[in-house]
Amino acid sequence: MMTEFPESERKRKSKLSASILSADFGKLAEEVKAVERAGTDWIHVDVMDGHFVPNITIGPDVVKAIRGVTALPLDVHLMIEKPERYIEAFIRAGAHYLGVHAEVSPHLHRTVQRIRELGARPVVTLNPSTPLCAVEDVLGDIDMVLLMTVNPGFGGQKFIPSMLPKIRRCREMIDESRLPVLLEVDGGVNRGTIDDLVDAGVDVFVAGSAVFAGNDYARNVNGLVERMR
Amino acid sequence: MMTEFPESERKRKSKLSASILSADFGKLAEEVKAVERAGTDWIHVDVMDGHFVPNITIGPDVVKAIRGVTALPLDVHLMIEKPERYIEAFIRAGAHYLGVHAEVSPHLHRTVQRIRELGARPVVTLNPSTPLCAVEDVLGDIDMVLLMTVNPGFGGQKFIPSMLPKIRRCREMIDESRLPVLLEVDGGVNRGTIDDLVDAGVDVFVAGSAVFAGNDYARNVNGLVERMR
Amino acid sequence: MMTEFPESERKRKSKLSASILSADFGKLAEEVKAVERAGTDWIHVDVMDGHFVPNITIGPDVVKAIRGVTALPLDVHLMIEKPERYIEAFIRAGAHYLGVHAEVSPHLHRTVQRIRELGARPVVTLNPSTPLCAVEDVLGDIDMVLLMTVNPGFGGQKFIPSMLPKIRRCREMIDESRLPVLLEVDGGVNRGTIDDLVDAGVDVFVAGSAVFAGNDYARNVNGLVERMR
Amino acid sequence: MMTEFPESERKRKSKLSASILSADFGKLAEEVKAVERAGTDWIHVDVMDGHFVPNITIGPDVVKAIRGVTALPLDVHLMIEKPERYIEAFIRAGAHYLGVHAEVSPHLHRTVQRIRELGARPVVTLNPSTPLCAVEDVLGDIDMVLLMTVNPGFGGQKFIPSMLPKIRRCREMIDESRLPVLLEVDGGVNRGTIDDLVDAGVDVFVAGSAVFAGNDYARNVNGLVERMR
Amino acid sequence: MMTEFPESERKRKSKLSASILSADFGKLAEEVKAVERAGTDWIHVDVMDGHFVPNITIGPDVVKAIRGVTALPLDVHLMIEKPERYIEAFIRAGAHYLGVHAEVSPHLHRTVQRIRELGARPVVTLNPSTPLCAVEDVLGDIDMVLLMTVNPGFGGQKFIPSMLPKIRRCREMIDESRLPVLLEVDGGVNRGTIDDLVDAGVDVFVAGSAVFAGNDYARNVNGLVERMR
Amino acid sequence: MMTEFPESERKRKSKLSASILSADFGKLAEEVKAVERAGTDWIHVDVMDGHFVPNITIGPDVVKAIRGVTALPLDVHLMIEKPERYIEAFIRAGAHYLGVHAEVSPHLHRTVQRIRELGARPVVTLNPSTPLCAVEDVLGDIDMVLLMTVNPGFGGQKFIPSMLPKIRRCREMIDESRLPVLLEVDGGVNRGTIDDLVDAGVDVFVAGSAVFAGNDYARNVNGLVERMR
Repeated sequence: MMTEFPESERKRKSKLSASILSADFGKLAEEVKAVERAGTDWIHVDVMDGHFVPNITIGPDVVKAIRGVTALPLDVHLMIEKPERYIEAFIRAGAHYLGVHAEVSPHLHRTVQRIRELGARPVVTLNPSTPLCAVEDVLGDIDMVLLMTVNPGFGGQKFIPSMLPKIRRCREMIDESRLPVLLEVDGGVNRGTIDDLVDAGVDVFVAGSAVFAGNDYARNVNGLVERMR
Repeated sequence: MMTEFPESERKRKSKLSASILSADFGKLAEEVKAVERAGTDWIHVDVMDGHFVPNITIGPDVVKAIRGVTALPLDVHLMIEKPERYIEAFIRAGAHYLGVHAEVSPHLHRTVQRIRELGARPVVTLNPSTPLCAVEDVLGDIDMVLLMTVNPGFGGQKFIPSMLPKIRRCREMIDESRLPVLLEVDGGVNRGTIDDLVDAGVDVFVAGSAVFAGNDYARNVNGLVERMR
Repeated sequence: MMTEFPESERKRKSKLSASILSADFGKLAEEVKAVERAGTDWIHVDVMDGHFVPNITIGPDVVKAIRGVTALPLDVHLMIEKPERYIEAFIRAGAHYLGVHAEVSPHLHRTVQRIRELGARPVVTLNPSTPLCAVEDVLGDIDMVLLMTVNPGFGGQKFIPSMLPKIRRCREMIDESRLPVLLEVDGGVNRGTIDDLVDAGVDVFVAGSAVFAGNDYARNVNGLVERMR
Repeated sequence: MMTEFPESERKRKSKLSASILSADFGKLAEEVKAVERAGTDWIHVDVMDGHFVPNITIGPDVVKAIRGVTALPLDVHLMIEKPERYIEAFIRAGAHYLGVHAEVSPHLHRTVQRIRELGARPVVTLNPSTPLCAVEDVLGDIDMVLLMTVNPGFGGQKFIPSMLPKIRRCREMIDESRLPVLLEVDGGVNRGTIDDLVDAGVDVFVAGSAVFAGNDYARNVNGLVERMR
Repeated sequence: MMTEFPESERKRKSKLSASILSADFGKLAEEVKAVERAGTDWIHVDVMDGHFVPNITIGPDVVKAIRGVTALPLDVHLMIEKPERYIEAFIRAGAHYLGVHAEVSPHLHRTVQRIRELGARPVVTLNPSTPLCAVEDVLGDIDMVLLMTVNPGFGGQKFIPSMLPKIRRCREMIDESRLPVLLEVDGGVNRGTIDDLVDAGVDVFVAGSAVFAGNDYARNVNGLVERMR
Repeated sequence: MMTEFPESERKRKSKLSASILSADFGKLAEEVKAVERAGTDWIHVDVMDGHFVPNITIGPDVVKAIRGVTALPLDVHLMIEKPERYIEAFIRAGAHYLGVHAEVSPHLHRTVQRIRELGARPVVTLNPSTPLCAVEDVLGDIDMVLLMTVNPGFGGQKFIPSMLPKIRRCREMIDESRLPVLLEVDGGVNRGTIDDLVDAGVDVFVAGSAVFAGNDYARNVNGLVERMR
């Protein structure tokens, strides 16, 4: 039973986080400003180190460059090994939410605690195959759980259908805890999947190719946001 | 004795490679076009994975974005562990020269061979503390040796003076081999150090902050190029 | 409640997988043909890399040599780190079932997905100490769960009795999911343990020393198979 | 329901394990003898390798030196990667209880089995963020579960309050299993936290700075022990 | 000048080591006996762990199986990381010469010393890109230097021509040291390359596909041996 | 030719560094004071992490405890991987000289530079098998080269005789460089080996068991020092 946090209120506060993984890297500032104008709530930044995932993307200096051109919260997702080494760099660069994968550190609580101490909001991310128990003992110390609904590494992948029951169980776990933890999903979010995700109880929707496709970003954003709320 | 490759000819063919590490990452396309107009010969791209060096910068998608806006050769420097995994991605993204560190792989020959097979020009890079013997048995299989004259990881560092004798010994090693291998240096290259580097026999000069400082990139480039030739 | 998959049917379709770990490595082709004639259902191949487990056994070329001499399904069990690097090699070599350990990759879903794409049947293996939750979110994407009932690395070890309740819980988890996933066990399977394993709901029984002991492989195989069905 | 192991009996057999992490490393023998005289039950030895945790402390030779001066059980806690390599060294040096982290080895059962074979009592330790399921399949093979109530690495840290529910769940898991497994906690144990820990069902209390503070170790020990029983 | 070890004597004692990497792995015992009858001097066994090199081959149990069927010296080449962990297993399995790569351990002297203590003859192997200085300080402690003339991992590769000067320099280094160290090469050895290798001063020739090609192994062996002596 | 630094002067300034690896770890403060009274020049502290070497010894807190009881320079030798992570901790703990192994970091120059910046004297250490070229490009940035004359990990080992020519070549390399770099050796230094070491040009002699044997440390120290000067 969740009297404090009813379904309708959750929808009201749900967010769209536009992933720059699908933006044009030659003109990131412009792209970020464009999706801000188009109505996205947050900017999602995918940091990949080529070790945790099979791709390398961008680092703190790029985050800083983005930070300078937008007032939106930066939702930085570290797909890197030993993330504790770079937490400070990304927070100094302007990360508002900072997500680390549960799979990469046996000291997840320390990392999450450190993110909070440094002034950002800690997020724990789980790969498709990682069980929810991986986050159960830090739920009281974080602001958001990010469930990957594709295997991280590349934009433009298809949503893994077997993730829907996992999202529902995560929703239940959070609701039962009565903790103010948001539920975010990343991977294959688009007009074809968003209704199921809303029904499953997602709070924050990361979308990349569904936002940066074509030229009419506002239309892309609206197509998602109108279903979310 | 080097009759085929006289001092004067070397100077004529010396190159300036502008390192985008010091560019504005929010508008890379524009920055790259600006230094191209300013007269740089090559674009130097510093790829860092946060493991080999204590910083994360950019990956293949950013290289591809740059490739699309310039006709200059891209001189990509992989400061990453296990570079063999990403060689193909960076060459497909548009790398013309592709450099790997001698310190990161016991199979340097295979990596260099693979770069050549995939159509790019192989470069071997040495950290300040790495002895020249690390490259001696692959000299016949590469197009360039890159000597780091700062410890890799960040732009804007000061040239390490004890690298000058190492550069001279490398020049000598290449000249004695009579192989068509270029000698490149990266780190602290600016108006204050370039004369010594020219004298020491450097062919390719990587410069970051000395090129991207202020607004008059053409003046910055000329200030270096006029000493090089 | 499992109306679609009754106890009797399960027994009918249970399989014996003869592990070549206990065969004579000097004449593998002959050994494999001998156990095929003796009536085994599958050939189990234990690949060890000396890193994930404290032993090195065989690789793709040996699998290919076996593939050439038998029509039985090859049930290849990768006891190796970073198995994603060798999936293609083992499938090309002839693996029918391909098992990876849940402990070695944070990207288990991607690995399993890739095995399927390449045309083999994905199996997830759990060490004795690994909890069942490690496989819960990929159960819909695999063909078999392999529970180790000894610590992997060597043939001829004794069954760990505390694995029986774990096998029963796994059986229950699979039955509740109503997914067509087989339950395989490996380690200490012989005439002394097989009745308990049948009762616990095992579908596929890996046996090494119990099959390759002495000269009468047919008698060894029958001694196990008659209890299984 | 636990008729064999009632609350009152548990309290009677509860233990205080004095952690030498807070002792004067220049005169360890003297410090150990002092806390023995002061009435501690066990000596807790924190071994850190600088890899699993961000600190290096002491190794087998120091354990051996302590072993020579006290008759108390040594409760050695390995905060090291690949602990299987050092189990024999620490047991030969005199460890009575030997604890390994669940996070560091996929072969936890083998490690625990080996500790038992070599004559010591196996302990499995969990970091604050590690779920209890990590120990569920080895509970029958160990003598104690050690729950970290701070992030391991340094003495003098504050107890993490969200660990109390985890301790209670662990107590319940052990009680339900009816296995003779002790429940130990380490981190922030002092007069301010001990009552809650006793209530939550802890059997063995590790205390460092609360024991070695000031000069009157007997008073420190009594301050804790009188609440424990 | 080498009066104790003249050119003619070196040739007399030169050896052919037949690499089973190119044999039929389904009938290794038979293949080994066949090349023994064909007149090879040694059996070369390539152990690959899938980590140091991009292939997995065979381990100690296969070495033991071979040991049982031939009287020839087994020349075991470990292409594995952390070889110190498996030295004892391979020597117990029957290795006569045991080779480790200089690139994989900072404690090469200890490894070599341990091989000798356990009764085998230590060999140090260098990849094509590894400089000869890597072996200079252990030359007095080993029986053989093995220079790779292809990048290790697979049979059937082409000899790298730039290795000839390296072989000559190695010959010179050994001759100058006046130490009884053999010089072995592995990779691309066949009728087309053997004359150059003999001239360069090689003592031991590893050949795989050149020996196991077709059916007439004796003719293959003779074709090499007649040039060697 | 070394006019500035004649043989006699070198001997006058040679040092004995007593290694606490052979002291009683239960009463380190007392042991250190005892060897100080006995006349040793420096205290040598062997830090082992159980990863770079097969032993774990002590960490920063033990160094700090020693620092508090002696006025002698602490000569701290880090036998650890990724030493850059602990440099600050050991210098804050009181290290005067701080040695790192050349084998463990591709960024040796940065590490050495950082040691200097933090106020300690940088030392580079080479294992018995590591060639001298590993230190040639940082010779101008360090205060001492430490040549291991046993394989690091344990006290009480025998001097490796083949290290004598290496020591002489190192002496020559330092003399030719005319840099103020000391030459230290560690391993098997005792009355039986010290004359050869003095002749080979060693400046600083690390001795463990030869100093801490028996009860008369002063006699032990004198037995070495009288040969050194």
